[in-house]
Amino acid sequence: MKLYTSSFAPNPRRVAMFIAEKAIAGIEPVLVDLAAAEHRSAPFLARNPFGRVPALELDDGRVLCETRAICTYIEGLHPQPNLMGEGFDERAFIEMADRRVELHLFAGIANCVRHTHPGLASLEQPQFADFGASQGEKMRETARWLDQELAQHPFVAGARFTIADITAYCALEFARGLMKFKPGAEGFSHLQAWRERMAERPSAARA
Amino acid sequence: MKLYTSSFAPNPRRVAMFIAEKAIAGIEPVLVDLAAAEHRSAPFLARNPFGRVPALELDDGRVLCETRAICTYIEGLHPQPNLMGEGFDERAFIEMADRRVELHLFAGIANCVRHTHPGLASLEQPQFADFGASQGEKMRETARWLDQELAQHPFVAGARFTIADITAYCALEFARGLMKFKPGAEGFSHLQAWRERMAERPSAARA
Repeated sequence: MKLYTSSFAPNPRRVAMFIAEKAIAGIEPVLVDLAAAEHRSAPFLARNPFGRVPALELDDGRVLCETRAICTYIEGLHPQPNLMGEGFDERAFIEMADRRVELHLFAGIANCVRHTHPGLASLEQPQFADFGASQGEKMRETARWLDQELAQHPFVAGARFTIADITAYCALEFARGLMKFKPGAEGFSHLQAWRERMAERPSAARA
Repeated sequence: MKLYTSSFAPNPRRVAMFIAEKAIAGIEPVLVDLAAAEHRSAPFLARNPFGRVPALELDDGRVLCETRAICTYIEGLHPQPNLMGEGFDERAFIEMADRRVELHLFAGIANCVRHTHPGLASLEQPQFADFGASQGEKMRETARWLDQELAQHPFVAGARFTIADITAYCALEFARGLMKFKPGAEGFSHLQAWRERMAERPSAARA
């Protein structure tokens, strides 16, 4: 299998961290140069018409895109340690937590960065700076909710580490780099403490 | 189980259609009056802090939110007919298709409507009309991609009806009502033909 990926984008990092947590070897990384618009080249668009990384090319030639779908596949191939739920009840509740951090925290950060950061103008056209700033405020509402969740249980989805922690951590790392967002400085002490615990996991190290 | 839902919003419709496809009886619907802001009332926020429908209250009192997570749970309880994939390979590819229509088609429509329609000002504050209009254009790019997909296979995810058809159909019904978007009038003949086939399914009827 080949994983089309890139060095700095948050979605590739989610898959990299998922793979590292399972200690899987043998997936060949293929770097896609976003700065050179390689994701919009004809060969890459033939693999993913949406022009996004990551994309997982299977040995039979099929290409699986969309971060969470790639994780579903990898979890099926390598079930342990389980990161997405054992049985449908746990799977559904982990999916709820993962979607909440993806659709409200991660997407808010991505919208804020893509619509306000000059360096992202090549990826997001047109940019709407006022919308981006508003998304930054809404992301903080979600961070406030997550801070309160983490006051009640040690991980995003509850008692154990799951894919929802990976999604939230990669979102916050993206916000730390490009929005200078620091949970502790904003009064989110539980979120900050969780972030520090996550940063100590070997899977959190940059490849 | 109780399903907190509403009459006109597209996400509740996705779950209603999913339940209808499986011909499940016995889930009690509880209507939440969005026009009266009941979704922002204290009792509802205690069930879903994000203030969104649908939300599924289980018999043990736990509340499961997020449309797709609710479908995961229902699929686990009522596996047939299968709508989300048999085995991890099919599950992953259906999830990819479902995410593509959710994150690009459905979200584009929702952003366009919520940011441009005066009637949605109570749900989306602040509104950014220029951003909304741009999202309407991007949604059409996704519709063009989906039209070409449906030229190659009869359903959104491939050879059979799945949750991805439900997501796409409910998105397009929302666009038909509030954006006056008609695939055929925009030259998307395969998408229009698929839409007509979907509309004939008993599950597509409004409750």
